[in-house]
Amino acid sequence: MTGGRRRALIIGAVAAGSKAAATAHRRDPDLDVVVLQEEPEIAYSSCGLPYHLADPDAVPRARLVARTPERFRSDGIDLRTGQHVEELDVAAGEIRATDLSTGRSYREPFDSLLVATGAEPISIPLVASAGSPVVTPLRSLYDLDRVMATLPSVGHVVILGCGYIGLEAAEAFRHRGVAVAIVEKQDRILPSFEADLADLVLAELRAAGCEVFLGDGIVGIGDGAAILESSLRLTADLIISAVGIRPRVSLARASGLAIGPTGAIGVDDRMETSEPGVFAAGDCTEATHRITGSPVWLPLGDVANRQGRVAGTNLAGGDARFPGVLGTAIFRVVSLSVGRTGLAPSEAEGAGLEPVTARITAPSQARYMPGSVALEMLLVADRGSGRLLGAQVVGRDGADKAIDIIATAIWGGLGIDDLADVDLAYAPPYSPVFAPVQVAAEVLRGQGLDRSQA
Amino acid sequence: MTGGRRRALIIGAVAAGSKAAATAHRRDPDLDVVVLQEEPEIAYSSCGLPYHLADPDAVPRARLVARTPERFRSDGIDLRTGQHVEELDVAAGEIRATDLSTGRSYREPFDSLLVATGAEPISIPLVASAGSPVVTPLRSLYDLDRVMATLPSVGHVVILGCGYIGLEAAEAFRHRGVAVAIVEKQDRILPSFEADLADLVLAELRAAGCEVFLGDGIVGIGDGAAILESSLRLTADLIISAVGIRPRVSLARASGLAIGPTGAIGVDDRMETSEPGVFAAGDCTEATHRITGSPVWLPLGDVANRQGRVAGTNLAGGDARFPGVLGTAIFRVVSLSVGRTGLAPSEAEGAGLEPVTARITAPSQARYMPGSVALEMLLVADRGSGRLLGAQVVGRDGADKAIDIIATAIWGGLGIDDLADVDLAYAPPYSPVFAPVQVAAEVLRGQGLDRSQA
Repeated sequence: MTGGRRRALIIGAVAAGSKAAATAHRRDPDLDVVVLQEEPEIAYSSCGLPYHLADPDAVPRARLVARTPERFRSDGIDLRTGQHVEELDVAAGEIRATDLSTGRSYREPFDSLLVATGAEPISIPLVASAGSPVVTPLRSLYDLDRVMATLPSVGHVVILGCGYIGLEAAEAFRHRGVAVAIVEKQDRILPSFEADLADLVLAELRAAGCEVFLGDGIVGIGDGAAILESSLRLTADLIISAVGIRPRVSLARASGLAIGPTGAIGVDDRMETSEPGVFAAGDCTEATHRITGSPVWLPLGDVANRQGRVAGTNLAGGDARFPGVLGTAIFRVVSLSVGRTGLAPSEAEGAGLEPVTARITAPSQARYMPGSVALEMLLVADRGSGRLLGAQVVGRDGADKAIDIIATAIWGGLGIDDLADVDLAYAPPYSPVFAPVQVAAEVLRGQGLDRSQA
Repeated sequence: MTGGRRRALIIGAVAAGSKAAATAHRRDPDLDVVVLQEEPEIAYSSCGLPYHLADPDAVPRARLVARTPERFRSDGIDLRTGQHVEELDVAAGEIRATDLSTGRSYREPFDSLLVATGAEPISIPLVASAGSPVVTPLRSLYDLDRVMATLPSVGHVVILGCGYIGLEAAEAFRHRGVAVAIVEKQDRILPSFEADLADLVLAELRAAGCEVFLGDGIVGIGDGAAILESSLRLTADLIISAVGIRPRVSLARASGLAIGPTGAIGVDDRMETSEPGVFAAGDCTEATHRITGSPVWLPLGDVANRQGRVAGTNLAGGDARFPGVLGTAIFRVVSLSVGRTGLAPSEAEGAGLEPVTARITAPSQARYMPGSVALEMLLVADRGSGRLLGAQVVGRDGADKAIDIIATAIWGGLGIDDLADVDLAYAPPYSPVFAPVQVAAEVLRGQGLDRSQA
């Protein structure tokens, strides 16, 4: 303890950690806030990397950084980069770290602690040889810098994995005229989406000039190429490894913090771990799904920021609550917007619910407007109660709006009738008189569900 | 009564009437559905007229018509245009009408009736003289045709009135390179919006080259000009009269249907008037405001369609309910989207509530995205309960989404905390990590309202 002042220590300063630091300091300026970050940079938007890659002039690197270490320090937060935390001694109320610039090892006491160690890319062991393409994930600014340095000599990129990061990177490279091949281990893309919706995304990728190889993997890299399990040899100057990420929990695990069933750190709704006074937030942490009540691991930037805000409030003696997630997510693939919220039908069944679905195609604007384009939507509700459970959308304009309307409705526990009847904003450039979400709700209403159980 | 078949008679076939006819026929194909319409055309989008005016190639006239009389007739609906209904005898269960093409007067019996007579433009008495500009409203296809016929010789248009129709017409004429002057009787535009938000719209109009004269009116028309109360003389080849509309209720009033406090036909939630078996829907009809429980008159295309669907179901023996409105509306002014839902602060006070407000400016996308633009928003909640009451938005991208999220939240009775915490869709092209609606909710949350009354 440092004199009379209490000290909050934060490990990690990308999304959750930096949000928590700023929140804690704002809430209690008398709190000593110490932030230890291993990377040289902090508070950057990992989600923004593909947009810089696509067009560095339109999205300058510096703008991806919301707040610099200098800014934090001038605000009175003791933020230190280049610090590797080796040990966390909860009982003693201290951590042991190494300053990577000097090699000095030191201990740092805390009254309250936040673990915001994030997630790390899963790496595929590939033995490089002379002339091998560069292999890198695309998750940190370091990764981005590496890719940008390589780019002038890159004509062909191979992307391993078809998650959000892989798809957004594919779009970025195509935007720059680089030939793109995507290699996906599974025999389909976007397994959390209905197959017919995922196929629309696959078609969009191929129409944009991406080669997509499904049910295949990489077994080696050689002279300017990637060699696949199928024996195909893909020309590659650069390989983006985007096969997935996992929560970075080795420090938490070694220090005795409970790890939840998802493999991420278990927390309560105050973001407190199994150890009192020790909090966790962001990509290393679980969240509770609002519908199922079960823990889920959703490493998304907005969840990390919201969890970080709650944790920061509580680090500073507050009593904020994180009310859970719906699994809402959206991403762009070339000109398509691909979003979801709540439960997929299979997830609803897995949670013991009986889902009913409507699968519709509806215009995004009044039909006579030249900008009107089709929105493809799956809406999921509970047969017994009519309660809304989830949605999946693929479209252009209006996809994000549809997801957010439905997410709000699910959040509030609303049902099919509410969504069919809600008074939304209509004018020809914005919506047909019956919005796509209402067309879908009306289809479900027309199925004459048994509401006696409601 | 015609044999064993029941007969539903519908007066009016634009939005509510045509929707009701299609709905009733679909629900009960054995029901005789007779529709009498005075205009030659039916089922057209009044809201779409400005978009045809702006660009007839992009929005062809024929596309403004959702369904033709021939289509209705081939579906088995007895739809007759050119029919003027003169009298409605509820006790006898019949109407008296004149076929305008033959002058023949006839009676038509009904078992159930829908009055969907719409609204009519308020006209300003102007005495034309030689060389006077054409004066017309812009509400029907007839009006549109008149404007389009005049257009080749129109270099200057004067628009009277600053409602949605006037503003959308102004944009359309500017799009065609016509000089636009707007004359508004009140000393401000958009009185249902906060003054600072309305000023943004005014600035947008002026930046687009529209002259705007506030606190002024037209006193006469003369040789190629409009003469204002202020003695200004505005060059005018065409004058669009958009000073307002009123419900067309003379037939309903004369036949004894109760007229509500708004001046429109009073109905219950089945859209039934004071006379059993006689329904009303659309722009001639009131609706109940979900928050205040009071009747309001909101002549909007989406409300008319939804009321028409409910009325059509009930005409066919169903029991559908219209659950009311929030006063949600949106329109476009040049590049601005201007929307609202729920109550303005003054309306909340008028309803006996104690509103608290947050007025924010927030980016529509992640700040580093080149397309990120500011959204201006007012969020209104109830001080005692934290319940959301309303919102007003002026912006570009994301304005309609913000309104629809908040409308959904208000519809579900959600509060400030719900909106601040709801799990919305985040990715850089779609939203910052904290969506604008959440930034506004967080401001209200930060005011530390007394929730003990919740």
